[in-house]
Amino acid sequence: MNDQDYMRLALEEAWKGCGFVNPNPMVGAVIVKNGCVIGRGAHERYGGPHAERNAIAHCTEDLQDATLYVTLTPCCHFGKTPPCTDVVLENGIRRVVIGSHDPNPLVAEKSIEILRQHGVEVTTGILQQECDALNDAFFHFIRIHRPYVVMKYAMTMDGKVATASGKSKWITGELARERVHLDRKRYAAILTGIGTVLADDPLLTCRIPGGRDPVRIVCDTKLRIPLTAQIVKTAAKTRTIIATGSGDNKKQSLLKQKGCEVLKMTVENGRIDLKALMRRLGEMAIDSILMEGGPQMNSAALESGIVNKIQAYVAPKLFGGQQAKTPVGGTGVGSPEAAWRLSAPVITKLGQDILLESEVVSCLQEL
Amino acid sequence: MNDQDYMRLALEEAWKGCGFVNPNPMVGAVIVKNGCVIGRGAHERYGGPHAERNAIAHCTEDLQDATLYVTLTPCCHFGKTPPCTDVVLENGIRRVVIGSHDPNPLVAEKSIEILRQHGVEVTTGILQQECDALNDAFFHFIRIHRPYVVMKYAMTMDGKVATASGKSKWITGELARERVHLDRKRYAAILTGIGTVLADDPLLTCRIPGGRDPVRIVCDTKLRIPLTAQIVKTAAKTRTIIATGSGDNKKQSLLKQKGCEVLKMTVENGRIDLKALMRRLGEMAIDSILMEGGPQMNSAALESGIVNKIQAYVAPKLFGGQQAKTPVGGTGVGSPEAAWRLSAPVITKLGQDILLESEVVSCLQEL
Repeated sequence: MNDQDYMRLALEEAWKGCGFVNPNPMVGAVIVKNGCVIGRGAHERYGGPHAERNAIAHCTEDLQDATLYVTLTPCCHFGKTPPCTDVVLENGIRRVVIGSHDPNPLVAEKSIEILRQHGVEVTTGILQQECDALNDAFFHFIRIHRPYVVMKYAMTMDGKVATASGKSKWITGELARERVHLDRKRYAAILTGIGTVLADDPLLTCRIPGGRDPVRIVCDTKLRIPLTAQIVKTAAKTRTIIATGSGDNKKQSLLKQKGCEVLKMTVENGRIDLKALMRRLGEMAIDSILMEGGPQMNSAALESGIVNKIQAYVAPKLFGGQQAKTPVGGTGVGSPEAAWRLSAPVITKLGQDILLESEVVSCLQEL
Repeated sequence: MNDQDYMRLALEEAWKGCGFVNPNPMVGAVIVKNGCVIGRGAHERYGGPHAERNAIAHCTEDLQDATLYVTLTPCCHFGKTPPCTDVVLENGIRRVVIGSHDPNPLVAEKSIEILRQHGVEVTTGILQQECDALNDAFFHFIRIHRPYVVMKYAMTMDGKVATASGKSKWITGELARERVHLDRKRYAAILTGIGTVLADDPLLTCRIPGGRDPVRIVCDTKLRIPLTAQIVKTAAKTRTIIATGSGDNKKQSLLKQKGCEVLKMTVENGRIDLKALMRRLGEMAIDSILMEGGPQMNSAALESGIVNKIQAYVAPKLFGGQQAKTPVGGTGVGSPEAAWRLSAPVITKLGQDILLESEVVSCLQEL
């Protein structure tokens, strides 16, 4: 086993915090002595101990001269918990191997400096790409205090999200749908449009055992959501936000009685100002959003420049149909040069289906 | 180097025949003695010597006790050339390693039997999948005497083949477009609709240096093709077939004067009977077709059940647009269960773009 192998174990550890640490990062740590793993730990819950401390607490033997592998630079300041650099030094750890850099370069530098000044050997950048990818949302949120937005859709290999008659159940197979539930757990909130609520009456919860439901956010410009919608009926149990441009106080208070939060937003060209909504949600510490909307909502989101990442699930089938809906509607771009540019996709096979994940490049440049 | 490694060399060799052997298979051979490659060869041109003979002819030393690696079972009968089993035995080759089985199981068995009876050791099935994939078109054509049809399209990651205003230059990058030209060389013919000819006035030639132009076939129900179209103007140089339902003899003879062949086909529901067209092209020894048509043509081809394989080039960009065209138009299927089913895609990265290749499963079942 080399540094990469141990860091991979730390990455596995980190996933234990998935869905429970937002808006903190997922972090994992592994402690190795004489070629043996003697402790592992993750940052498991928001406000709870950091991964390094959990790994040390779980150690089965003396830590003197051990190596600590950690997916993110150990902190060197008092937050909700004391500095992790202290606990490293107190326990006589001889070497620290780091994956991602702390997003604040001053903190990253200072932590490493403290460790080195005390004779600890520090190696950085091991599996950095993988460690960074773990916390896309965290790195984005801490920088601009607006949620990291992932637009997800499932389409056939000829680009349809439904048949011409509007049917879409199902396009992808079991494994792809399971992966969606993992992301519902991972990201703090789920965002959909009133069109999807009226058409499908979805629950938008996470169906993974031991999972955590995302905050459900519905864009409902004219406050058309029925009080009998599943989302409204379960609002007392699962946090639910209705973003609207409507001043209908009576409907608003009926929704609040059911447990919904109502956000009154400004409307532009008949649509909720999505940029303003993102600022508002950022202030509410919602660090990440999985968009599961229809073509209209997707188009509006892209046009307002709030989308950071595209998740396109592609199923090996063809629907055909000139009238069948595609993932992004609206008016679209006028010429190929004006297209929204994406990064080369990361490809994941999920049974027969594939998942293509790309960053929205134009969006990144804009920030 | 093991059997797989040498067979991989033979596969590389086989590609030398790409575009020049149809409707024969591409075949490559490598001869190994005492761990050294002493000869290589391919079936280079239709009617020319088989790969085994070329490899033997190129041998740099005595063949006694050598091993022959060949991507397809050596033939044991007189065709345009004498049996390859003879040349193996005459030269004292001790072992033969085979990739694909001859599509005629009796021939495959007989060849192996002859070799074994003469004391030659025979190993089969080495890299069989790769060797089979090389000759998809050949295996299909020899079985049913109709062309193997590959439907190719390039789309954005939101399933558009053009912007809402109809612009499509370019969706994919250089590498993807080069790959298309390789396939124009590989497959015997290219098929497009009159819509594409009127809109883009394409040449549909192969722009690879030393390549070979495919036969160009245009589906033109009402014989609307202008005599000034690039395809017509170059018909004397590059074989061009116009399939039409029109009985306009004057237009037909004008086209013939320019060098076009005109096929009068029956028309059903205002469309050329594509199944009948495939039978006709099969009789003309056209073993494979690359379809580069628009959404209407693609839909008609799928509905008539002639499509064997889908090639979907996907570019990491988004066009949006409810009115933008998608790869397959027409009315499409009524429900997700009725979708055309494809095999799990083979994925190839081409720069920023990806190519997804799937067999049409329903079509395979039908045969």
